Amino acid sequence: MNSDNFNLSEKIVSPSYIRQGSQARRGHEQLIRQLLEQGKCPEEGWSESTVELFLSELAVMDSNNFLGNCGVGEREGRVASSLVARRHYRLIHGIGRSGDIAAIQPKAAGSSLLNKLTNSVVLDVLKLAGVRSVASCFVVPMATGMSLTLCFLTLRHRRPKARYIIWPRIDQKSCFKSMITAGDHMTRIQLTVFSVERKIEELGAENILCVHSTTSCFAPRVPDRLEELSSLCSKHDIPHIVNNAYGVQSSKCMHLIQQGARVGRIDAFVQSLDKNFMVPVGGAIIAGFDESFIQEISKMYPGRASASPSLDVLITLLTLGVCGYKKYLSERKEIYSFLAEQLKSLASAHGERLLHTPHNPISLAMSLDGLQANSDKAVTQLGSMLFTRQVSGARVIPLGKEQTVSGHTFRGFMSHSESYPCPYLNAASAVGITREDVTVCIKRLDKCLKTLKKEGGAVSSSDQEVSIGE
Amino acid sequence: MNSDNFNLSEKIVSPSYIRQGSQARRGHEQLIRQLLEQGKCPEEGWSESTVELFLSELAVMDSNNFLGNCGVGEREGRVASSLVARRHYRLIHGIGRSGDIAAIQPKAAGSSLLNKLTNSVVLDVLKLAGVRSVASCFVVPMATGMSLTLCFLTLRHRRPKARYIIWPRIDQKSCFKSMITAGDHMTRIQLTVFSVERKIEELGAENILCVHSTTSCFAPRVPDRLEELSSLCSKHDIPHIVNNAYGVQSSKCMHLIQQGARVGRIDAFVQSLDKNFMVPVGGAIIAGFDESFIQEISKMYPGRASASPSLDVLITLLTLGVCGYKKYLSERKEIYSFLAEQLKSLASAHGERLLHTPHNPISLAMSLDGLQANSDKAVTQLGSMLFTRQVSGARVIPLGKEQTVSGHTFRGFMSHSESYPCPYLNAASAVGITREDVTVCIKRLDKCLKTLKKEGGAVSSSDQEVSIGE
Amino acid sequence: MNSDNFNLSEKIVSPSYIRQGSQARRGHEQLIRQLLEQGKCPEEGWSESTVELFLSELAVMDSNNFLGNCGVGEREGRVASSLVARRHYRLIHGIGRSGDIAAIQPKAAGSSLLNKLTNSVVLDVLKLAGVRSVASCFVVPMATGMSLTLCFLTLRHRRPKARYIIWPRIDQKSCFKSMITAGDHMTRIQLTVFSVERKIEELGAENILCVHSTTSCFAPRVPDRLEELSSLCSKHDIPHIVNNAYGVQSSKCMHLIQQGARVGRIDAFVQSLDKNFMVPVGGAIIAGFDESFIQEISKMYPGRASASPSLDVLITLLTLGVCGYKKYLSERKEIYSFLAEQLKSLASAHGERLLHTPHNPISLAMSLDGLQANSDKAVTQLGSMLFTRQVSGARVIPLGKEQTVSGHTFRGFMSHSESYPCPYLNAASAVGITREDVTVCIKRLDKCLKTLKKEGGAVSSSDQEVSIGE
Amino acid sequence: MNSDNFNLSEKIVSPSYIRQGSQARRGHEQLIRQLLEQGKCPEEGWSESTVELFLSELAVMDSNNFLGNCGVGEREGRVASSLVARRHYRLIHGIGRSGDIAAIQPKAAGSSLLNKLTNSVVLDVLKLAGVRSVASCFVVPMATGMSLTLCFLTLRHRRPKARYIIWPRIDQKSCFKSMITAGDHMTRIQLTVFSVERKIEELGAENILCVHSTTSCFAPRVPDRLEELSSLCSKHDIPHIVNNAYGVQSSKCMHLIQQGARVGRIDAFVQSLDKNFMVPVGGAIIAGFDESFIQEISKMYPGRASASPSLDVLITLLTLGVCGYKKYLSERKEIYSFLAEQLKSLASAHGERLLHTPHNPISLAMSLDGLQANSDKAVTQLGSMLFTRQVSGARVIPLGKEQTVSGHTFRGFMSHSESYPCPYLNAASAVGITREDVTVCIKRLDKCLKTLKKEGGAVSSSDQEVSIGE
Repeated sequence: MNSDNFNLSEKIVSPSYIRQGSQARRGHEQLIRQLLEQGKCPEEGWSESTVELFLSELAVMDSNNFLGNCGVGEREGRVASSLVARRHYRLIHGIGRSGDIAAIQPKAAGSSLLNKLTNSVVLDVLKLAGVRSVASCFVVPMATGMSLTLCFLTLRHRRPKARYIIWPRIDQKSCFKSMITAGDHMTRIQLTVFSVERKIEELGAENILCVHSTTSCFAPRVPDRLEELSSLCSKHDIPHIVNNAYGVQSSKCMHLIQQGARVGRIDAFVQSLDKNFMVPVGGAIIAGFDESFIQEISKMYPGRASASPSLDVLITLLTLGVCGYKKYLSERKEIYSFLAEQLKSLASAHGERLLHTPHNPISLAMSLDGLQANSDKAVTQLGSMLFTRQVSGARVIPLGKEQTVSGHTFRGFMSHSESYPCPYLNAASAVGITREDVTVCIKRLDKCLKTLKKEGGAVSSSDQEVSIGE
Repeated sequence: MNSDNFNLSEKIVSPSYIRQGSQARRGHEQLIRQLLEQGKCPEEGWSESTVELFLSELAVMDSNNFLGNCGVGEREGRVASSLVARRHYRLIHGIGRSGDIAAIQPKAAGSSLLNKLTNSVVLDVLKLAGVRSVASCFVVPMATGMSLTLCFLTLRHRRPKARYIIWPRIDQKSCFKSMITAGDHMTRIQLTVFSVERKIEELGAENILCVHSTTSCFAPRVPDRLEELSSLCSKHDIPHIVNNAYGVQSSKCMHLIQQGARVGRIDAFVQSLDKNFMVPVGGAIIAGFDESFIQEISKMYPGRASASPSLDVLITLLTLGVCGYKKYLSERKEIYSFLAEQLKSLASAHGERLLHTPHNPISLAMSLDGLQANSDKAVTQLGSMLFTRQVSGARVIPLGKEQTVSGHTFRGFMSHSESYPCPYLNAASAVGITREDVTVCIKRLDKCLKTLKKEGGAVSSSDQEVSIGE
Repeated sequence: MNSDNFNLSEKIVSPSYIRQGSQARRGHEQLIRQLLEQGKCPEEGWSESTVELFLSELAVMDSNNFLGNCGVGEREGRVASSLVARRHYRLIHGIGRSGDIAAIQPKAAGSSLLNKLTNSVVLDVLKLAGVRSVASCFVVPMATGMSLTLCFLTLRHRRPKARYIIWPRIDQKSCFKSMITAGDHMTRIQLTVFSVERKIEELGAENILCVHSTTSCFAPRVPDRLEELSSLCSKHDIPHIVNNAYGVQSSKCMHLIQQGARVGRIDAFVQSLDKNFMVPVGGAIIAGFDESFIQEISKMYPGRASASPSLDVLITLLTLGVCGYKKYLSERKEIYSFLAEQLKSLASAHGERLLHTPHNPISLAMSLDGLQANSDKAVTQLGSMLFTRQVSGARVIPLGKEQTVSGHTFRGFMSHSESYPCPYLNAASAVGITREDVTVCIKRLDKCLKTLKKEGGAVSSSDQEVSIGE
Repeated sequence: MNSDNFNLSEKIVSPSYIRQGSQARRGHEQLIRQLLEQGKCPEEGWSESTVELFLSELAVMDSNNFLGNCGVGEREGRVASSLVARRHYRLIHGIGRSGDIAAIQPKAAGSSLLNKLTNSVVLDVLKLAGVRSVASCFVVPMATGMSLTLCFLTLRHRRPKARYIIWPRIDQKSCFKSMITAGDHMTRIQLTVFSVERKIEELGAENILCVHSTTSCFAPRVPDRLEELSSLCSKHDIPHIVNNAYGVQSSKCMHLIQQGARVGRIDAFVQSLDKNFMVPVGGAIIAGFDESFIQEISKMYPGRASASPSLDVLITLLTLGVCGYKKYLSERKEIYSFLAEQLKSLASAHGERLLHTPHNPISLAMSLDGLQANSDKAVTQLGSMLFTRQVSGARVIPLGKEQTVSGHTFRGFMSHSESYPCPYLNAASAVGITREDVTVCIKRLDKCLKTLKKEGGAVSSSDQEVSIGE
């Protein structure tokens, strides 16, 4: 309420109480002020009541909530269902304009503020998470893969003749498809980082659209050597796009990017909103070290876009604050160690090994040689047993699976290499995980392995393993 | 509750009352059953309580809501903020999988059902709205423009050599950018439909990626002649993509598409969710007559996507029902006539004309010659006066504006032609508009025009006008 | 947001858009201002967004939402469940203080404002509904019956020797129990209004606590003759309490009270919140013409009380506005006539009559003589048939039911008289009813009657009927 | 969804995923089943999604949510505002019937279940909290004081001749008013427990309505000696009502009641919902050891009542579970010790003392002699300083305040005795308090005391203190 209304209230309820109420309101205003002034994630998380007060303030600034508005356009932010209006806090106009997803909308000052602030707060968090020199970023309501596509499409305007993307293989369909979607006549090159330079020379730098590297990934693959790749890109004047899908949660992945940018060239790095910030699926952050290039990407998105992922991440970060988010990150790290220990002792109890992947800060892998030896089907059977026992996210990778994606055949699919020596099981410590998740998972996994052994034959372990991608 | 729980309840509350309660529950189940069985928009809208019951049923089927789930993956649908969880009805996993936005997610049976049903219900509504032979569609959480881009990118895989898109000019940035984003080395051709065939012959059909036509648009432009264009495409074996941005709300636009597909070739038509279904900005529907091509497009989206637009449109359509949606459509049509009358008499009172655009079923335009004559700045001044008086959506188009979009310069921008003879003002009757919107708009517009006249000089009217795009 | 924050916002989003947003905010503030200034129900209903903005403003004024509050009392408005906090808009402290339910709470300026404003808005609506000279009222979170008890308990402090309540019989348990609960050693007297004066003289006015009369009631009973009763009370200096349970919705009932107070004495009239204002069960309004007496009652409630009913009615009245509420009232009246017609023709089709009760403005009754003649059980069977067919509220009254309430035996219970001549069925047109309710009810009733006839024997109709209570 | 709908879903989404979803649903159903079967508070708290699923299941069983219902009664659970409907989870019919607040409503099986289950779960928690032999209880949507009044009114029906309530003085207005409201012609007797027997003999047991004792209270008063009082009541055949306002949170208070009932007579004990269960103000629990007496009280409430307090406490207890609630209780106990230490050292730093009240398990008091010596006004000034510094709940008690409540004058009001020897400050460790509350309070209190000293003169401490009520 404004001061007039507080004054009127003093005639109804004792002035001293109203004054205290009005002072309390200033407490919330003060938090909002800091946010507007600094554009940073608050140190301490906001209460839900401050968050909702702020969102309702934003909403009243949008024309669809003007009391006297009359609309004769084709897009007036009308909402037929009150359930829908409510769940979006009556912020209906989305973000951006025809020409630029980061642009301000005349009809929607509140939504525009939301968009700007979200990008600003997210930028702050990227810095805190380790990429201290990041210059610009924006939230885009698309999957990480589609966001990568947008980066590639932007690059094609800069390098119209380029035909190739150099891509150290990682076996996630969307990573591969992000390139396919951007244009079929390119050749994806699967190689380790050591052979990248040779490949560049072979193809000619001018024919290469970019290097497309990866940080976060499933073990036994480990993050790409970003320093070396960035230096190469810098040396050969080739753009460099990093898929940092769920790497914000890992100081190691963020450090790799920071170092890459320091010693060489990274044009953009792309990360998932949901995987790093515990929000619903559907958004990504495109970030980089050169503001004008990031802006160029934001201008490639034709049309207005959903504000929903921005709203989710803003609510989440305001609620958590820097403290809250850092607490999540440090818990994740601790539980990673706990998971590693638990998996190691489980593995040893079953005559298996925890694969040696010290450079992967999130994902772990445990061999399943014994199971394989036991029966051909046992490995895949384990996967479905875990599924029905509600252990989710524990991927089982059999040997030598062949998969065709958009016409390209991958041998040894899911293991990031043509012939990985053993079948294995993945488990990850991702942000938001609890010790109980680990304990329960290990217990159920143990049971499943015992059951499978009873049904099967002898077990022996292999002793070879490979880290891929280095 | 299941029957066990109803039985237990009978021991606490009289059996006859519980039985009636249980029977009442079956009423809701019955509605859900029809939805699952037929995949159609219900004739009568559901109550909010049925909608929310259904959504909570879907949510419990997703693994993030399993009571006994333990998650050791990198994407487990964890949500840090309860505000966020709640506003998504705890449906966190989004839609689709890495390889296909229409694919089913093992971790999220409920979200998968949501996705399938939404697409099915939306398909039903597209049929009811006039495109009776549409075969397939899907909701994509991207702007109409970006969705068009996705269509073009898909076509490029089919026609790798094609360089050109034939595009009857329409002055909305996102329409133009949707092509730019898909690949810079194409030439956009601005022409009327009559010269399309000549252009095809000139360029060679095999070098043309597609014809990109438009239905809904700002007057004085009118919808493209889809029958002729579709026939041409069919004859020359050229794909045809239709931008039907806000055309679902108009039986005329839908009829054009239906006819185009009947007599010729339309590969896909794309429409905005927010503009046609009164939901927040952020989604589009990609639809077509050949299921396999639509599937091909859906497989181009790399990664999982936000379920938010799907959720919004499903809630809205279930709540409205076919009756409710049709009521909105018929009201829109009536108010279009009302708006036309009102604008006409206002125009005549001010010595202006309602431009003659009988083929545009949504948008109207009124000349501003007198204003122009009055003063050079008066036309743009009118725009900002309307803005500050909370008349939203009433676009004012001055003469001969030049605009550069992605390096391409458009003369006479916003008027869809290089030299439109008069300045004008647009007003549209879009779905959800009320008579009050019109009345208030006309009143305020009248005041503004009077004020401007007082300030300015003599007024004279031009008598020439043009329909563009035919 | 305050002006500082708007200024900061102008640096992030264009000043002109922010200014418009800020101006839009003033629109909402203006509505709140009028409410605070006038304490009246707004003429036009508020949008939900204004209502929620206002409630969140109130909430931040309560100490449990102070950002810097530290609480070391035994009652600090802490809430364990966020579901609970949210559903109360974080207004946790209830209303009133130990000594007075209308008192202001130092810890809760917002809740105190809510309480004061609710009482003020409700007072305004009581005036509009017909009791123009009402001086004071308050919402109490108790049933109408318990609220009547509170009135009686208050009167006992004024008239410690009085033993009797004069009560024209009405057969609703809670009416009777309201007196029983107030003190067992009183005798309730059942009589028609004509014999009231004789009874007063017989008992001695000084021994009479009050006259307890009724307006709204089930037909064939009609409202008591308040003018005569009020005059008698005035003449003999006896307090007069009116049970106006669902009478606010009827201009006739309200007129009776207004007239009673004009010509004689009414100390308080009590009405249900839920029945008159379409809110959940649980609140009542105690109103009267002498502010000090109403205050005395409010001081009888020991302790703080739930704000929930106040919140519900305030939200409802702000949302409806005077226009919206009046529209409901006039619809109710129209549907009353429609229901009467429909019942009349149904009755005649089945050889029954609509009982002649022109003075009852809400409830109607239709004879069931034929059914009774048919079979003894048919009348009660009809009741349960209607129940299972989801016709709710249609009470069936068999002949000569005997019922003991708190040790007192009533003959002919539910028919308000010892020996009503015929069995009958009640139906009411209460606020919020729709034409469809009536149509469906009549259809189902017709079917039930046909079914029962088929099963039973001959039908004949009685031709006598009685209005009770006059 | 029922099994039919799950079967249909299997045709849309892979059967194995649907089956898992359906199995997950059974998990929620299983929790509901246990609740229905055992009527107990679950050991582990439910997730919000289970709670909301359950509430929506209850709601669909109420007739106002029947899809085919037609209502022609005067009370049909219609709701005008969707905000209101939503915040009550569409449970509109309240609890109870005309004759009994615990009765089942034919129109509202769901609300009836809610009511029964709430009472059952609350009973379970009372047992766990220490009154193991409690036989029956019900939640009533009234303040503790009004609930005590209801108990007294009920007793008056049993003991029509009784005129006196024996009440060891406690200085909270609502405690006193609860008796006043029940009937003015009684004399309240203020005395310590030691003189109770003499008073009984003096007045004659048959003239005494009941003994009205207190557990939880502000220090330096301590809980009454319930064992002795209960024995006396048993010996003299006098009813005994215990005001256990916020005693559920203290094992000591609950133990007193349990022991009282074991060795003597307790007819009912009444406690606040909000103070013990962290829900909004407005409800109480009336409990006792004789089911029929508790039922008698529940039948005294004339009319239906608000379900809101029942809903709040049910949601809270289901969400917390036994574990969660016990955790709150043990934290409260720990923080009580912490608060005592902190207050003690603060007091000593300022030349004051922590008053010696070992039997009061919740509230503490610290002398303010020095402040008093300093200046007459300093003590009350401290109170208002704490208020403006957002220290809430810290009551400051000056010497010799006189207060008239309902015509009765209390000397030394708020200190529970006519002449308490020193002024003091209260602070309490109530359920939900945090260590931060204490730390911040002590810090601010320290500052205030320093400020006041600077302004005032010399400080000296008294060395006498009194525990009242034993």
